[in-house]
Amino acid sequence: MVLLKNEEALAKTAINTWKLVIGRLDRKLEQLTDDDIQKQIAPGKNRPFYILGHLTAIHDRLFSLLNLGERLHPDLDDVYIASPDRSFKDAVSASDLRKIWTEVNTRLTTAFEGFTSEDWLQKHAEVSDDDFAKDPNRNRFAVVLNRTSHASYHLGQLVLTK
Amino acid sequence: MVLLKNEEALAKTAINTWKLVIGRLDRKLEQLTDDDIQKQIAPGKNRPFYILGHLTAIHDRLFSLLNLGERLHPDLDDVYIASPDRSFKDAVSASDLRKIWTEVNTRLTTAFEGFTSEDWLQKHAEVSDDDFAKDPNRNRFAVVLNRTSHASYHLGQLVLTK
Repeated sequence: MVLLKNEEALAKTAINTWKLVIGRLDRKLEQLTDDDIQKQIAPGKNRPFYILGHLTAIHDRLFSLLNLGERLHPDLDDVYIASPDRSFKDAVSASDLRKIWTEVNTRLTTAFEGFTSEDWLQKHAEVSDDDFAKDPNRNRFAVVLNRTSHASYHLGQLVLTK
Repeated sequence: MVLLKNEEALAKTAINTWKLVIGRLDRKLEQLTDDDIQKQIAPGKNRPFYILGHLTAIHDRLFSLLNLGERLHPDLDDVYIASPDRSFKDAVSASDLRKIWTEVNTRLTTAFEGFTSEDWLQKHAEVSDDDFAKDPNRNRFAVVLNRTSHASYHLGQLVLTK
């Protein structure tokens, strides 16, 4: 067994929670057919397709927000972040969206696993140096913990489908 | 500004995320009247009252799971953990449940804020020494990150009510 420093152990635990939630979403999405994800989770509420597009777009934004390089699919934002469900025709097919979802999460997880504690505590891209000096909690670790909770929030909705 | 060690900064960020999610739940629950929380979030699904009872019972269990002393309300488990919604008459009134929810979270948050990094990385109460040696990720930090995601999962359902 490799002995980790406390700060490494804490960061590893957070990555495990991220992977756990993504894994649960993956399993739920596998249970739903491409037809199922077109059906609203409850009358008047979002389709699973929209929720998946939304989560994929929000996760794809993490590449720029965490200074990990260019994001892969900025084209998703208009339809799945800026607008409510059914404002537009879907921007991608269900099978392409499933692939993009997996691709984005796989790349993010690989990046997270390479972070040192110092990397985790760097500011994210949307906070100024001054604001970060006042509130050092606006770091990459906070962003990933928040996105893990956000993913879980929508998982709670997806499980209502069937 | 107090300079924190990396491990302290990571733990503080996780506590902030816990407080953020609990704060969002609190605000959502304030918007819902005692009548509102009796109405199923969608046809055939749980009532917000049940979800609140469930979250309160799960959080109350953290006192024993994290070795913080006796739990406060073990009487909630039969109705809100062991059984699906509407199996039993509610175990408490809406106003009492709201008070217990706040009391449990306030005490937990105070305990979390007193934890050192070593405290966070202690094993939780339901894993044996042997299993913990094999998987040191089964620590208090993992439990609280998971419960934060769990709370967020049910928040995602509560927002469907109105």
